[in-house]
Amino acid sequence: MKNKNKLNIAIIGLGNIGSYLYKYLQINKEILSKKNNCIPNIVFVSAKSRNKKRSIKINKKKWLKNYLDATKSEKVDVIIELIGGAEGAAKKLVFNALKNKKHVVTANKALIAKYGDKLSKIAEDNNVNLEFEAAVCGGVPIIRSLKEGLIANKINRVYGIFNGTSNYILSTMDKENKNFKDVLTNAQKLGYAETNPISDLNGDDVAAKLKILSSLCFNSFIDHTIHVEGINFIDKLDIDNANKLGYKIKLLGVSELINNRVYQRVHPTLIKKSSYIASIDGVLNAVIIDGKPVGQNVIQGEGAGPEATTSALISDISSILRGNIKFPFSISSKERKKLKYKGILERSFSAYLRFEVIDKPGVLSNITKIFSKNKVSIKRLIQNPNKFKKFSSIIIITHNTKDKFLNKVIKQTEKKPFIIKRPKIIRIGAN
Amino acid sequence: MKNKNKLNIAIIGLGNIGSYLYKYLQINKEILSKKNNCIPNIVFVSAKSRNKKRSIKINKKKWLKNYLDATKSEKVDVIIELIGGAEGAAKKLVFNALKNKKHVVTANKALIAKYGDKLSKIAEDNNVNLEFEAAVCGGVPIIRSLKEGLIANKINRVYGIFNGTSNYILSTMDKENKNFKDVLTNAQKLGYAETNPISDLNGDDVAAKLKILSSLCFNSFIDHTIHVEGINFIDKLDIDNANKLGYKIKLLGVSELINNRVYQRVHPTLIKKSSYIASIDGVLNAVIIDGKPVGQNVIQGEGAGPEATTSALISDISSILRGNIKFPFSISSKERKKLKYKGILERSFSAYLRFEVIDKPGVLSNITKIFSKNKVSIKRLIQNPNKFKKFSSIIIITHNTKDKFLNKVIKQTEKKPFIIKRPKIIRIGAN
Repeated sequence: MKNKNKLNIAIIGLGNIGSYLYKYLQINKEILSKKNNCIPNIVFVSAKSRNKKRSIKINKKKWLKNYLDATKSEKVDVIIELIGGAEGAAKKLVFNALKNKKHVVTANKALIAKYGDKLSKIAEDNNVNLEFEAAVCGGVPIIRSLKEGLIANKINRVYGIFNGTSNYILSTMDKENKNFKDVLTNAQKLGYAETNPISDLNGDDVAAKLKILSSLCFNSFIDHTIHVEGINFIDKLDIDNANKLGYKIKLLGVSELINNRVYQRVHPTLIKKSSYIASIDGVLNAVIIDGKPVGQNVIQGEGAGPEATTSALISDISSILRGNIKFPFSISSKERKKLKYKGILERSFSAYLRFEVIDKPGVLSNITKIFSKNKVSIKRLIQNPNKFKKFSSIIIITHNTKDKFLNKVIKQTEKKPFIIKRPKIIRIGAN
Repeated sequence: MKNKNKLNIAIIGLGNIGSYLYKYLQINKEILSKKNNCIPNIVFVSAKSRNKKRSIKINKKKWLKNYLDATKSEKVDVIIELIGGAEGAAKKLVFNALKNKKHVVTANKALIAKYGDKLSKIAEDNNVNLEFEAAVCGGVPIIRSLKEGLIANKINRVYGIFNGTSNYILSTMDKENKNFKDVLTNAQKLGYAETNPISDLNGDDVAAKLKILSSLCFNSFIDHTIHVEGINFIDKLDIDNANKLGYKIKLLGVSELINNRVYQRVHPTLIKKSSYIASIDGVLNAVIIDGKPVGQNVIQGEGAGPEATTSALISDISSILRGNIKFPFSISSKERKKLKYKGILERSFSAYLRFEVIDKPGVLSNITKIFSKNKVSIKRLIQNPNKFKKFSSIIIITHNTKDKFLNKVIKQTEKKPFIIKRPKIIRIGAN
């Protein structure tokens, strides 16, 4: 092998992750140089608040006056973007960096999900790398596996648990028999949920990751046709019911290629307790790939935190150190397809529905009539009366039915005077 | 990106895997060229029996007169070795290929486990790739993940289920309540076990894979200090006992770095039913990595068969197509360490021991005395008498004890006149 080169790196953004990465690169410079036959050399850093207390010591000369200077400096080969957010500073940095022929490594899923197509085109035209392993499921090396380890495969489905916060909340509600709010408050105290956890709970975080994965798996452009539900409305009661029926509730991201159409969806899902995915508890992430010829592949690991994210960032940096130039989305922009992405109304599911009703004669027949009118066939029905309160909980498990018919059932029942809460629907299974 | 290059490939060995790979490369030439910006072009093939019936049509001109001609021809850039075996033709082919500056892709675990150190040195000196993803756990992209996706990590343990045949046999004995012989015979009929399944059953296959993984994980040379037991002596009775105690029996490969010493071992292990690894049934493989900073990573998939193996071979070929030159063992031969590999006598385990004894007074106190003499403390003891036969089965679960003391207990008990079979020992847990 030829003698060692050196690549100059600028780290922009020095929060928990940026600081951890900085320290990691200092400590592990030698071993990384040996493995990649090229030295990773931090030349510049930048952060919003320079004087914030940090666990690292940085030479004054390394601080940039303006973070965008990194994109102009001839001394910089690689820019690590750790600012976050799809717009503003992060967007400006990454677009300018690629235009100026700098390699970019980013952990920014929102940016890639929104501008990944444009950015990858610029990267390709300028013959530089755009790497985003850290943007999807932290320490799970899924992007690299899709682009390299599983490159042989025609993938028809990718799904899994992509958000540690919501998975922690669901599994803790189940294990500790607590309600949503209590678990969330505690998760925030423990650092498993952010002060503003909205995008973790409403499914948006999973949606961004899923869009990136779909695009990589199916060689298509990123598409924003996606059904998204979060875990905000999951009650302890649903978790208990699921348990009795032999299921766990998990927030899944699922993307499937069926007859050249892609269906992307994020929603709480009832999963058989005996299945692999039901065993993924706490803050873990897991990605499952169905492809040919390999069959099913599962990759599991920690989805977030400075440690797991640094593992991903370093794999990206190493790829650049080795000069392993690749198309950011596995295939050139010219060759990526514009696949048809469809809403899920035409997809069929078996579903769990829960109706909270006033307990009086005729209610059950009224509800089941609506099911039969919409051709939704019932597999199982459980009525749990609460005579004392004069209310009753009706749980119905349906056979496989198109989503649009399930929606109609909800719409037609929710108006009925005997319904006291918006009926709840949770789809069953991962297919 | 620059215009497409072309790499010329010779496939040597055309059994099930070679034939499947040949067909795959024909069908997927275009997509692979697009993804890697380089065309994979099969120029030559060779096989022991040219006239064997195959599912593929091969142009007469592609057949080599002598398989070793591939290593000399200027037309060949990459040689795929699918002959198998650590010696003979495979060894000759791979050594000659690397010496003549041909890239090599191989699925041959025996060869790499035995000659990997020498071969990687030659590959490095000649600036060519030696790739062996397909040699370890087929469709599980573990080699590439260790060398690329998880490159940041200091790994202290790698373990898992690395042999589909033995895992299929153990899980089928459990699920279908059948004995070893019946399940093996059926597995052979179904194609899950080879006509000669010795190396799958005696642990040798797992040992070869584990040696390769240890070396990659710990940046060390391959070492043959390894404790190996297979599943040949697992009785249905042990599986039933394990079940009653809340365990499953799995054949694990485990390699650990403790205080700069490596402990490599392959043996049947009692694993808690609730653990992830206990849920891996049938012919699946799973590899678990404990490392810093990433924490724990799990990769699971199909371990064998033409489909899964081709997925791995194509990832290797693609890496070469992209010009992704890497050290075969992640780090150069000069930098690889000579770590101390130790036998397991000093490692501590909790263990399950089963004694088949003549049921008479004093036997139990005799046995427990031997335990106490060797300072092996007993956690649990179950005696299942069979009055009719005048025999009895004594099951003892020990606390954590050095392996050498467990061995002493076995040695000192097996001589006793009341012992009717060699006592059985199965270690507990993966740590």
